[in-house]
Order: sequence, then structure tokens, then C-alpha cells
Amino acid sequence: MEKLSRNSRISAITRILAENPNKVMSLNYFSELLNGAKSTISEDIVIVRDIMEKLNFGKVETIAGASGGVKYIPDISYEDKKIFAENLCELLMDKSRVVPGNFIYMTDIMFNPRIVSTAGIILASNFYDIDIDCVVTVETKGVPLAYEVAKNLGVQLVTVRRENKVTEGPTVSINYVSGSSGRIQNMSLARRSLKKGSKCIFIDDFMRAGGTAKGIKDLLNEFESQLVGIGVLVDNVASARKLVDERVSIIEFNSVDEEGNINMSLSSLYK
Amino acid sequence: MEKLSRNSRISAITRILAENPNKVMSLNYFSELLNGAKSTISEDIVIVRDIMEKLNFGKVETIAGASGGVKYIPDISYEDKKIFAENLCELLMDKSRVVPGNFIYMTDIMFNPRIVSTAGIILASNFYDIDIDCVVTVETKGVPLAYEVAKNLGVQLVTVRRENKVTEGPTVSINYVSGSSGRIQNMSLARRSLKKGSKCIFIDDFMRAGGTAKGIKDLLNEFESQLVGIGVLVDNVASARKLVDERVSIIEFNSVDEEGNINMSLSSLYK
Repeated sequence: MEKLSRNSRISAITRILAENPNKVMSLNYFSELLNGAKSTISEDIVIVRDIMEKLNFGKVETIAGASGGVKYIPDISYEDKKIFAENLCELLMDKSRVVPGNFIYMTDIMFNPRIVSTAGIILASNFYDIDIDCVVTVETKGVPLAYEVAKNLGVQLVTVRRENKVTEGPTVSINYVSGSSGRIQNMSLARRSLKKGSKCIFIDDFMRAGGTAKGIKDLLNEFESQLVGIGVLVDNVASARKLVDERVSIIEFNSVDEEGNINMSLSSLYK
Repeated sequence: MEKLSRNSRISAITRILAENPNKVMSLNYFSELLNGAKSTISEDIVIVRDIMEKLNFGKVETIAGASGGVKYIPDISYEDKKIFAENLCELLMDKSRVVPGNFIYMTDIMFNPRIVSTAGIILASNFYDIDIDCVVTVETKGVPLAYEVAKNLGVQLVTVRRENKVTEGPTVSINYVSGSSGRIQNMSLARRSLKKGSKCIFIDDFMRAGGTAKGIKDLLNEFESQLVGIGVLVDNVASARKLVDERVSIIEFNSVDEEGNINMSLSSLYK
């Protein structure tokens, strides 16, 4: 390839970093792809790093050493996070979302890539400082969100199933008590899907009493693994008692009143 | 904000376009965020467009008119697609993946963000020329892949469930015959999750005889909607008969022999 202009190299580097969140990309890779000396590429990266920081688009970090290179940790500004949460809150408070049993219909939101991709960056940004091996979720509605969080953190997603599947090989199953309904339920995970000694965070769409999170904790114990954090899109703060403590959420759900008005607010992230 | 250099603006524009595939971003938005005249931003975009095309990173298209702007349609080069498919094929042919019943364990792959995000671009790129309203999948393993395809196409994801959920409101259910096992199964979709007259593509991890795809077609009929394309990661080409015709795949699965060797090859996309 002919020599590229700095503008062109910078555009290419930005695109590659944005497509590979939290993955170390070597200077050699950029140098060969863009036909530029490593010193030149390093200068390009400084420019990318500075503008990402200035616009609160996340951090570009340099990793020294033989396996070194550069990685991009995506983020958005506090203001944009707040605007996102406010818009989401308004969307969720639409009275037509109440379905029998006073559940809130959230399926369209959990499968909307534009909403989920931003929510994924927001939740992931709460876990950048801890070292984790994977993101765990339970099928089905939380899968895209958990996937985005895993992608932004540069780790594997592990999805717990409600029932055994023939395509999974040997599985480990546990029973757990759903905190809100009090019913005993089952969750299972393929033996080979999680290494011993993994540190995991649990991501889900909605948390009531936390029975599912407690179940995940127990299931991870069976894999000699550890739950080190919880993130949900919507946290039901009115639920009588919480079976788990620490958790991060974007929206807090309080109640549906007799007239079908949904009472939601921004989570403590925005207070 | 003070005036930015062209380098900085170009990095910012690239990052924003990469984060918003197939979404029209107005010149006004860039102009205000980056404090540059629209004519200047237009010149920046031409530079981004040219380098994306040169590196086969996809197309940057300009949309004229009042609601106009610019949108980015992600892609990767034919060579990179082929390398990806070859690596994936090798990964899938690992004998330890065979589970009882001669199924291939693919769960780790379907929940690996780095694999799924690339596979999502490859499958999406086959549907850029047709006009679709949503991507449909059936829970659970195909959800991240279908999500990535939907994100790249800039449309909603719709996930069909195996059973009714209380949080979904009224649903439409159908029975279908699994083409490989001959067993009758159920799939259901919330009434409000799909508008009448939608054009949909179906994305899944693995296709055997196509019974699930046929079921999806029937279910979409109940919503007066239409299946206009099918994409799968792995297509079992040895399956006796196919209940559906046209489909795109990345890998073709042929057989598992008596010694447990898995016979897979690249799909016709690479021939």
C-alpha cells in the first residue's frame, strides 16, 4: 500500500480501536496495515487518545513490553449517560407497558441495538477497575445487554439456561427460590462453559428481590468461581428485601399505582 | 469547545460513525459537537469515506435532503472474511466439541464477543441491498449473533421464545415440526413485538433440516409479515432435505465420522 496521510491513518486506527474494545492491538499490526513507521503510528495514537479523552469517548491506553500495544476502553460522558437514562426512563414509564400482574413490558427495549449498545457501555464502565474473567447472564431478555457489557470489557459471555439442552454436553444444575414469587426454579450451565476460579459479573435486564442473582452466586460456587459484581438495567427498589447487596443499575423502578402509572427514576449513578 | 484540528475531528467522526452503524447522523450534529463549519465537516467525511473504502472497512454514504446526513455501513475485506472463516472452521473441527448425539458444542463460540461481532458483520453484509424492518431469531444461542446483525443493519431484533412468559403480554404461538427429530415443538412471540407487514430476516447459529426456519416463516405469517432472508453461522449441508431454500452461511457442516472427526468446510461465500 502507498503511504497514507496522517488523517487517513488516524481514521483507520480509530475505526480499528472502536471495533475492538479492551483488546490489545500491537503497534506492529497498525504499522504493517497502514504502511507507517512505529514511531509515526505512536504519534497518531496520541492524537486519537487526546481527542477521545477530550470528548469523554473513553480511554486509549498504551501497554508496554513485548506483548504490548494499545487498547481502547469505550465510554461516554456523564451528561450523555444522564440524557440516555432520562430518555429511557420516559420510554419505560409509558402506561401501555403495564401487562397483567403489573409487570413492565421491556422486550422491545432489551432487543433494540441502539439502546442496548449505549446501556452496555454505561454498565461496563462501572467495572473497568476490577479484573474479571467473564460476564454471566441468564436467558433470554438480558442476553444482548450482557453481550455488550462482555464485549466492552473484552471478556467471554456465559449464558445460564433455564433447562438442559442436548447440545451442551454435561451440565451443572441448581434449584433456586425466586425471591418475588417464592417458587422453586432451575438453572443450568454446561460444565465446559466456565473455568474453575473465574471471577464473574452478573448482568440482567431487571432485578426484583435478587433471587436470580442469588441463584447465579450459588451456581458459580459449583464451578469454584466467584460473583464479584452485579449490573442491571432496571432495579426494583421497592422489592421487600434484597437477597444480594451491591449492584449497579441505570433505572430504579418503584411501583405501578392503581391508575396504571409507572413510577421510575434515575438510579443513584446520577445522584 | 475550542477549534479542533482536522486530525482530531476525523478521529471523532470515525468513532461516532463506527458506534452507530447504518444510522443517519446529521452534519449539524457533527458541526455542533466538533465546532466546525458544515463545509469543513463535509471535507472531513470525504477523507473518512476514502480510507474506509481503501481498507475495505465499509461504506460511508451521504444522504441528501432535510433529514439527510451521513451513515456508515460496516464491512471487512474478502480476505479478512476468509481468514475469519478458516480460523472458525479450525476451531469448530476440534474433536472435543462432539457431544453425545453427534452434536457439536458451539456455545462458547456463540457467546464470544470477538467471534460474534465479526460474524455479525459478515452475515449483515449479505443483506445490505435489501430493505428489511427487523432481524428475527429464536432463543438462545443465536441471540448475540442476531443482535450483531440487527445492529449492523440498523434495525430492531425480535426474539422468538420457546414458551410464554408472563412479562410479554398477549402472545401468538405456533407448533412446528423439527425437521431433524420430527418432534412437534412450540414457539411464541409477543403480539406487540412485531408490526404488521414487516420484512424480516432470520438469523441463527446452526441449521439442520430447516424446521425452525419454516416455523419462523409460519409465525411471521400470523403477523402478516414476511421472511425475506436467512443467515446462519453453520449450515448442516448433509441434512436429508431442506425445508427452506435460500440461506447464507459462513461454515458448512458435513458429518462426524466414526472416529469423531468433524467434517466442516467454508461455505459457498468463499468459493
